[in-house]
Amino acid sequence: MYDMLAGLSLIEASSFMASPSAGLYCAQLGAEVIRVDQIGGGPDYHRWPVTDDNASLYWENLNRAKKSVALDLSHPQGREVLQALVRATGQFITNFPAEGFLSHEVLAEGRPDLVTVRVMGWADGRPALDYTVNNSVGFPMLTGPGPEPVNHVLPAWDLLAGAYAAFALLGLIQRRSVTGLGGEARVPLSDVAIGTVANIGGIAEVTCSGENRPRLGNAVYGLFGRDFVTSDGVRTMIVVVTPRQWKNLVAALSLTEAVAAIESARSVSFAKDDGLRFAHRDALFPLFERAIAARSHADLSAAFDAGGVVHSEYRTMLDAANDPALVRDNPVFGAMQDGAGNPSGASYPAAGAFVTVPQLDRAPPRPAPRNGQHSEEVLTGRLGMSSGEFARLVDAGLVGLG
Amino acid sequence: MYDMLAGLSLIEASSFMASPSAGLYCAQLGAEVIRVDQIGGGPDYHRWPVTDDNASLYWENLNRAKKSVALDLSHPQGREVLQALVRATGQFITNFPAEGFLSHEVLAEGRPDLVTVRVMGWADGRPALDYTVNNSVGFPMLTGPGPEPVNHVLPAWDLLAGAYAAFALLGLIQRRSVTGLGGEARVPLSDVAIGTVANIGGIAEVTCSGENRPRLGNAVYGLFGRDFVTSDGVRTMIVVVTPRQWKNLVAALSLTEAVAAIESARSVSFAKDDGLRFAHRDALFPLFERAIAARSHADLSAAFDAGGVVHSEYRTMLDAANDPALVRDNPVFGAMQDGAGNPSGASYPAAGAFVTVPQLDRAPPRPAPRNGQHSEEVLTGRLGMSSGEFARLVDAGLVGLG
Repeated sequence: MYDMLAGLSLIEASSFMASPSAGLYCAQLGAEVIRVDQIGGGPDYHRWPVTDDNASLYWENLNRAKKSVALDLSHPQGREVLQALVRATGQFITNFPAEGFLSHEVLAEGRPDLVTVRVMGWADGRPALDYTVNNSVGFPMLTGPGPEPVNHVLPAWDLLAGAYAAFALLGLIQRRSVTGLGGEARVPLSDVAIGTVANIGGIAEVTCSGENRPRLGNAVYGLFGRDFVTSDGVRTMIVVVTPRQWKNLVAALSLTEAVAAIESARSVSFAKDDGLRFAHRDALFPLFERAIAARSHADLSAAFDAGGVVHSEYRTMLDAANDPALVRDNPVFGAMQDGAGNPSGASYPAAGAFVTVPQLDRAPPRPAPRNGQHSEEVLTGRLGMSSGEFARLVDAGLVGLG
Repeated sequence: MYDMLAGLSLIEASSFMASPSAGLYCAQLGAEVIRVDQIGGGPDYHRWPVTDDNASLYWENLNRAKKSVALDLSHPQGREVLQALVRATGQFITNFPAEGFLSHEVLAEGRPDLVTVRVMGWADGRPALDYTVNNSVGFPMLTGPGPEPVNHVLPAWDLLAGAYAAFALLGLIQRRSVTGLGGEARVPLSDVAIGTVANIGGIAEVTCSGENRPRLGNAVYGLFGRDFVTSDGVRTMIVVVTPRQWKNLVAALSLTEAVAAIESARSVSFAKDDGLRFAHRDALFPLFERAIAARSHADLSAAFDAGGVVHSEYRTMLDAANDPALVRDNPVFGAMQDGAGNPSGASYPAAGAFVTVPQLDRAPPRPAPRNGQHSEEVLTGRLGMSSGEFARLVDAGLVGLG
């Protein structure tokens, strides 16, 4: 665990993926992230994948290196404790509704410099999820060979919203350090999705053309990029984004003359123009299909690597988990043998921060907490609660212990 | 444009998507982001979608609200100017190689507190792209109905890496404000991808089970979620993540008794268990298919909305662009009529920051710069270059003007 954010404490009241991932990224960089959960866990506490004992491998990986306080949030007194914790730290990440007992206005009473980051569905408060905003902005109608829509399996909008929420949190903290002012950053999944469509040119494209982009299967729009199959049946993705990669790909496949013939026949030059390579794919793709189908994957891999051509065979997740470069020998991962404190008791490689900072030590990944594991430490330490008062709340069923 | 990051200046030398999007997010929150590009533009300067005049709608949306300095980066003197700019500001975002004239070590000479954020392909410096890391970690083998792999069209890894890079930048800046120390944050696409597989439980899942998750088409793993078709032929995604949503969905479809019969026959209760709803989908899905196929989309929409059931019909990107709630009436977007300064001259709705901060004014989105538009302002202002020296560099072809 890096110490980049050492000294920063924040309360996280959240579930599902976006909001917990924002907290995870902060915890992995050394912030103290205190999850406050319903006693027994929130709505995602048993989300699949689970072990045979119904312990969530999803939850325990999205909540590594955090602390856990368990409260009865259906009870007014439990809610007041959560509010007091938010006010005591001054930083809050949540996906609870914008109105109600966790509204920024309510929480900022008595803590005017509070920074809140709130992941939402729609900006107006209506519920939405990754899978529904994705439909709303059109990607499933562009994905796969068609004609049916294809959902992507990666929860990309949740993940993007989570990373952006972590960024917005630090942005508001930076502003506060200059101005002294708090504030609330609202990150609706719907705005992340439609804003991204705009950022990558999609709104401009369909507005200017009045029509949708053609559906391309595994080919990449506007570039030379597609999946091909080698003589030994390996399906591999090849993508070209620089003049050098194009030149080396054509040379590696001994297609220099054949490509020149197309250029001559069509009065174009592919050397420096991604768009032309895409526009003339009707002529180029069959040529490359044949050349790649005539060679083995090992043979082509070596030639492509030597020329800096970007390629990757399709693999399964199990293949990926067993890949030494990606996992076993990757400093991002820690061993986590013998469960190493995982609430599930399961043993498997655990990830630390994506980022590598050569100037800093990367300590091993830490486990997720058990529900309520840090209730006593946090309530007595942060809120100055007496041990008698703490015991009373536990006895009353308002506080849970790990 | 929000002013959250006012006072922060950074140099961006970058192309493609991840690194420019990190700069975009900073610029949209008020940072001064100065792109330094090859004269005439880098490798992504004409990336599709493009206008009839080959102006990139992609580039001009990923680079809004930034400044542009154009240099001949193939010439030692052009490279020195870029190095001087990085040292003058102290913050740098790039996807240039970790070694060479833009290595952190080289740049930190004379600016020991420099903060660098570098998006990479593989962590060891080998090239990789969104489309190839995606294959490497297994998502295309889980996407679509099978058996062929399906690439997702959304460049999700680039986008996630970009948002995370912006977060890491602010993290290093926060650390520097406490310790005075600079450093380099390296964000390899490969680590973002495999780290995410781990974060959402995928590495644990395949390691513990020894096998890959089944391929589910448009159904969601571990939840009740799938696409269904209404009586009037509308395909819509429905996802349930809370007990209340389940109860209301079942009631809206008048399936209370039929679901109770399955629960009774199988000795389970679906009321509070996402996993059971998924495990028994063989019984549940046909029931819901028939109930939904018997009702119109308008009828079901109203019932679902009343019950807080999360659903969304599949739409195209053109549908999304024409949706008033998503674009025209959405404060994230600005009108950008009459081109409004877009380098392409095209008119279309332009996005500002995803985040909404109720406490701050959201000024209209700003256009991307023309290549070299701010060369004079930045070189004379930031580097204190005399007008004579500036003119000499322009005459020598080392600096480009917008």
